[in-house]
Amino acid sequence: MDKMQVLPDTQNEQDHREIMIDRVGVKELRYPARYLGANGTEQPTIAKYEMTVELPAHLKGTHMSRFVEALHAFPEPLCGESLAKLTEALAGRLQAQRAYIGCEFSIFREKEAPVSKMKSLLDYELGMEYRYCAEGGSELFLSAQIPVATLCPCSKAISERGAHNQRGVVTISVAADQKLTFEELIDLAESSASCELYAGLKRTDEKAVTERAYDQPVFVEDLARNVAAGLRKHDLISWYRVEAENFESIHNHNAYAMIES
Amino acid sequence: MDKMQVLPDTQNEQDHREIMIDRVGVKELRYPARYLGANGTEQPTIAKYEMTVELPAHLKGTHMSRFVEALHAFPEPLCGESLAKLTEALAGRLQAQRAYIGCEFSIFREKEAPVSKMKSLLDYELGMEYRYCAEGGSELFLSAQIPVATLCPCSKAISERGAHNQRGVVTISVAADQKLTFEELIDLAESSASCELYAGLKRTDEKAVTERAYDQPVFVEDLARNVAAGLRKHDLISWYRVEAENFESIHNHNAYAMIES
Amino acid sequence: MDKMQVLPDTQNEQDHREIMIDRVGVKELRYPARYLGANGTEQPTIAKYEMTVELPAHLKGTHMSRFVEALHAFPEPLCGESLAKLTEALAGRLQAQRAYIGCEFSIFREKEAPVSKMKSLLDYELGMEYRYCAEGGSELFLSAQIPVATLCPCSKAISERGAHNQRGVVTISVAADQKLTFEELIDLAESSASCELYAGLKRTDEKAVTERAYDQPVFVEDLARNVAAGLRKHDLISWYRVEAENFESIHNHNAYAMIES
Amino acid sequence: MDKMQVLPDTQNEQDHREIMIDRVGVKELRYPARYLGANGTEQPTIAKYEMTVELPAHLKGTHMSRFVEALHAFPEPLCGESLAKLTEALAGRLQAQRAYIGCEFSIFREKEAPVSKMKSLLDYELGMEYRYCAEGGSELFLSAQIPVATLCPCSKAISERGAHNQRGVVTISVAADQKLTFEELIDLAESSASCELYAGLKRTDEKAVTERAYDQPVFVEDLARNVAAGLRKHDLISWYRVEAENFESIHNHNAYAMIES
Repeated sequence: MDKMQVLPDTQNEQDHREIMIDRVGVKELRYPARYLGANGTEQPTIAKYEMTVELPAHLKGTHMSRFVEALHAFPEPLCGESLAKLTEALAGRLQAQRAYIGCEFSIFREKEAPVSKMKSLLDYELGMEYRYCAEGGSELFLSAQIPVATLCPCSKAISERGAHNQRGVVTISVAADQKLTFEELIDLAESSASCELYAGLKRTDEKAVTERAYDQPVFVEDLARNVAAGLRKHDLISWYRVEAENFESIHNHNAYAMIES
Repeated sequence: MDKMQVLPDTQNEQDHREIMIDRVGVKELRYPARYLGANGTEQPTIAKYEMTVELPAHLKGTHMSRFVEALHAFPEPLCGESLAKLTEALAGRLQAQRAYIGCEFSIFREKEAPVSKMKSLLDYELGMEYRYCAEGGSELFLSAQIPVATLCPCSKAISERGAHNQRGVVTISVAADQKLTFEELIDLAESSASCELYAGLKRTDEKAVTERAYDQPVFVEDLARNVAAGLRKHDLISWYRVEAENFESIHNHNAYAMIES
Repeated sequence: MDKMQVLPDTQNEQDHREIMIDRVGVKELRYPARYLGANGTEQPTIAKYEMTVELPAHLKGTHMSRFVEALHAFPEPLCGESLAKLTEALAGRLQAQRAYIGCEFSIFREKEAPVSKMKSLLDYELGMEYRYCAEGGSELFLSAQIPVATLCPCSKAISERGAHNQRGVVTISVAADQKLTFEELIDLAESSASCELYAGLKRTDEKAVTERAYDQPVFVEDLARNVAAGLRKHDLISWYRVEAENFESIHNHNAYAMIES
Repeated sequence: MDKMQVLPDTQNEQDHREIMIDRVGVKELRYPARYLGANGTEQPTIAKYEMTVELPAHLKGTHMSRFVEALHAFPEPLCGESLAKLTEALAGRLQAQRAYIGCEFSIFREKEAPVSKMKSLLDYELGMEYRYCAEGGSELFLSAQIPVATLCPCSKAISERGAHNQRGVVTISVAADQKLTFEELIDLAESSASCELYAGLKRTDEKAVTERAYDQPVFVEDLARNVAAGLRKHDLISWYRVEAENFESIHNHNAYAMIES
């Protein structure tokens, strides 16, 4: 007789509280991943996963090891399409009507400095979540955190010299078709700010980005609006939220704006 | 002529993108506060604030200094009722139809160890958010993070000796009447776990809590359901979400369950 | 017979590996505290404690509950002098030759905006550590994290308009006499930067701080050197390390400089 | 005439404060890396770098872009030997007598569950720092954070049933020869605890690890001593510090022990 058969199966016991669990599973699970970029190339990264399923009211517990099993067995590079497949596979493995997989990871893009053309990489934080529903209506959510520079229009207008500026971060969250690329979201945020960021800048570049930021001042409100204006005319996006947060150089707190579709 | 009158007022300029901003203001602003507990006593703490207002489409920017002014001028101890007042005052100061103030802070409760009666303090993370709407329908949200101990029923049932257990955290979020106290939420979470936590435990106490946890095993699912069962019959709560997260002692990731009303 | 007497006392057993433990105790223990400021006034705060003692090679374990007991029983406001007393008391309670208590907490200082005189509070992160040695040579260490604004001299010199600037943080760590005040360290860091920070600034103030920062550009190297120059001539300081870190507005990484005495 | 030649070179100006800077450079710089494991295979990861050099008293500033340039140009997989080369190259590029490069990154090891043989990956946080000194005496430091399970011997001894246990983390820091492998450090920590961790465990495995932990109880002191005993007899290690920290399941604070050679 198999040992597995004689061990009590506590999770499969009946539960009598009559409370369905919306999401149950694992969180903060880190695993290697390969990010599939817009241009078809793969980029290795490390993803932090949250994997959950719906649990009917009559079941006492889910089977935690199957979440890890599903992830470990998954051979494909990470993109919206493959995340959908993985989530459906998880639902199947756990006989769940709804399943959710969210993941967060960093990617890099190579940039050329504006004048010297020095090359370096800039990092971005991305996220995806697939919400699978057996009855239909499954949805894909993407998010991206894009660091930028912002220069204050008020400070520029009222000051005889200089203008306060700072690093900020734009967080774009969308419900979108699997064809939408993160690269579009990054480009939109970077072009909406006073200036984009670079890891490597020579002195000639520093002059260029300083003057560019001074010439394109944006409030945190402007930054959010510029991004929203781009998102709302995008065919592949059915819902969006844009958040802009400036790590103000004159305060120890941040300025913040949020627009939701 | 006053200098303020001659400085350009960039924020008051017209904006032509026709995009209303849902929330704009300050974030990560830390300020001293006095928490008003259920028993009417005050407890000093430090709160981290997010204060925002709605900005109509035709206005270019909000007035960031007024958020700080409103907070600095606020004399009352922190509770649902006073947060509502502060948020309304902010809306007035900024002539906004909607205003939101969220805050997060720590509080302590004195506990007696179960056997030795040794006294010590345990810390909890609380949060409040008031969403003011001039047209009516303002809402108060409370949240509490309560650290607890959980012992795995499956591990206990299948093992000849011992059972894995760990620290976990219950996060309760509710939309509630101002009369609801955080203390009720904390009590509910602590009584729903395998055992509550203490800062100070003598050896006799350690024996008691070890045995109590062994006698009351809960899955992360059980913990969430126990709390949900208490929340759903509470008259002052109109919406709730309970999250339970166990920092599994056998894994490097967490087990997680969530139930939303 | 008392139950305590019959419970096995595992910690008091002999250990035969012949390895002395440098520090053993509790960490991440949060407790309310009252900070005693330079002017003699008390300010409530919440401190995170690390409390440890040396454990001789022949003892198997320390008595963890006594650390909490010592802290819970301590009635005095927090300052270098009282921390020394608490650490000595801990050493006594645990019959240890060496004991260490470190704590981290936030404080606020009221500031007047430079032109409008608007009042608001700014938060600072402080730390203290007392290293008690029964044989003599006990030492007190203080640390302070002071947020400031820095404007890049290179960017100013090479650009036709504007100059990149950003929030930065100065971390000062010192071994010092109990008479040294944190307020001196904060003042030193703030006067060494391009400009100090404020929670509340009206438009007239924003003009003033923008221009001040433009008129006082500092590299991260300058900031560290300015602070070091002040520290090294201070009689009450026997050792120092100053770190300056700028959250560069043109990069997604930070600039950093460190000088140690 | 080249534009670079006409731009003022502020960093190369003379400084008259006569204060040498111990370390100046970049921090929180994230870049892709390939970790070279003990078995010669490469594993992609993302490293966070701190790169600094010593700056003589007479120089006003360092050249920040050269740090990024050095890293971007570096083609080799990450190991002690290659980090030494990169640090020396940095010193050369900046004409510095001393240079320091530290990096932190995650790696994964495949594990087999003890009974079911289910395969899964476990993540570890590693760090390396090379301190280059032109005059000789360069040193390599390694660090590893290894998550483990610990079961309290006292709780087991005094309780009629069960014993509290929890996740903990062992942090090993060493000054070592380039031949030392991280894998040895990980193995040492995992064998020193009550039980090692796994991402994937079936029910039969859960029984095995529960019973194993119960049979091998360790105090945080034991854990630190077990690791120290292994480190001090290792030929390739010239200095070590071991820290053990338990996320106590009965407290909301941690137990901590540290032994330094």
